[in-house]
Amino acid sequence: MTEQTPIAVIGGTGAEGGGLALRLAHAGRRVIIGGRDACRAAEAAEAINATIGAERASGASSTEAAAQAGVILLTVPYSAQRATALALADQLQGKVLIDATVPLMPPKVGRVQLPVGGSAVATLQEELGAGVKVVAAFQNVSAHHLRDLDHPVDCDVLGCADDAEAAGIAVDLAQAMGLRAFHAGPVANSAAVEAMTSLLISINRRYKSPGSGLRITGV
Amino acid sequence: MTEQTPIAVIGGTGAEGGGLALRLAHAGRRVIIGGRDACRAAEAAEAINATIGAERASGASSTEAAAQAGVILLTVPYSAQRATALALADQLQGKVLIDATVPLMPPKVGRVQLPVGGSAVATLQEELGAGVKVVAAFQNVSAHHLRDLDHPVDCDVLGCADDAEAAGIAVDLAQAMGLRAFHAGPVANSAAVEAMTSLLISINRRYKSPGSGLRITGV
Repeated sequence: MTEQTPIAVIGGTGAEGGGLALRLAHAGRRVIIGGRDACRAAEAAEAINATIGAERASGASSTEAAAQAGVILLTVPYSAQRATALALADQLQGKVLIDATVPLMPPKVGRVQLPVGGSAVATLQEELGAGVKVVAAFQNVSAHHLRDLDHPVDCDVLGCADDAEAAGIAVDLAQAMGLRAFHAGPVANSAAVEAMTSLLISINRRYKSPGSGLRITGV
Repeated sequence: MTEQTPIAVIGGTGAEGGGLALRLAHAGRRVIIGGRDACRAAEAAEAINATIGAERASGASSTEAAAQAGVILLTVPYSAQRATALALADQLQGKVLIDATVPLMPPKVGRVQLPVGGSAVATLQEELGAGVKVVAAFQNVSAHHLRDLDHPVDCDVLGCADDAEAAGIAVDLAQAMGLRAFHAGPVANSAAVEAMTSLLISINRRYKSPGSGLRITGV
């Protein structure tokens, strides 16, 4: 991909996806917000353009957004992850899907409850097959901090993928957004990163933090 | 427990347990190294006393060490965890067991391979029952860094336990050893911390680090 390759953010009308889309557009990337409601997606895109003072974001249906993009970010709730991704399977073929899904199971979101297979993203990679290169990333980054462009994000991105080139694309995008990022092993390693999100929520509550994160040391 | 409560380190003849025992003794705690071979345990204790220049460590069989201690640290390989702990069940009753076990499954130790149930430590808590208060902790701390007393350990300790008082004991011990530590939720959350160890090993290899760690931010 080049810097001009459009990036679709499916679920970009939500808090996490909106924050990632804002940071990407602010970093000079073309972003297509994809939503079930194309009008709401266009509104979210307009809000991003107004914030950054440039026309880099547009809105579309999820299908349109995925079809036009070279790289697709998936940022929907766990309950919608599988159905949303499988509905876009045709549009995803030959592309990189960066999946930020965390398998939180309300009401006990501060307790690690592993999904069947251990990782929601690794399971999706299996279902989509080798034609789609899935990278797990951005699960631990606070939406709250992403949306505040003046706030440096004190949390590393751990990109887990079986395909090194795909992992590199996620790492590059994170770095363009001002985040430190690592290729952290195969997509199976996403189980650790997904589960850490519940642990961080537990720490937020006990230590009254608005949004804890994690950093890798010693590298 | 008081500062005079002896702490048993089962597996303290190994690298990780030896490092934890050294740091505890250096912090002024009484330590009993427990091993299958009481002679080797006594030798390991002597080496610690020589390093710190004080007589705070002694050696014993694992059964003796657990019987004499108020708090027991378990630092044996995953393959020995269950059998070692269950053999000490009588000595552990009414006490706190701090379990540093990581379910690494050679040869693919840089790939997250979740044990049945997701967490090796949570499974042990279930098997031991409510009479033993199990805390998962110290899984990510590099043995290499622990053994070098001049080296500050740049890695947080995440203590996961269903019993808040037991978690607090593990947090206090870690802090006495100069480490930053958090109560990170129920013992189920140990699944995240255990799995992170494989992810850190993967990062060590890819980025040529002698021992990466992790820090919690925003707290």
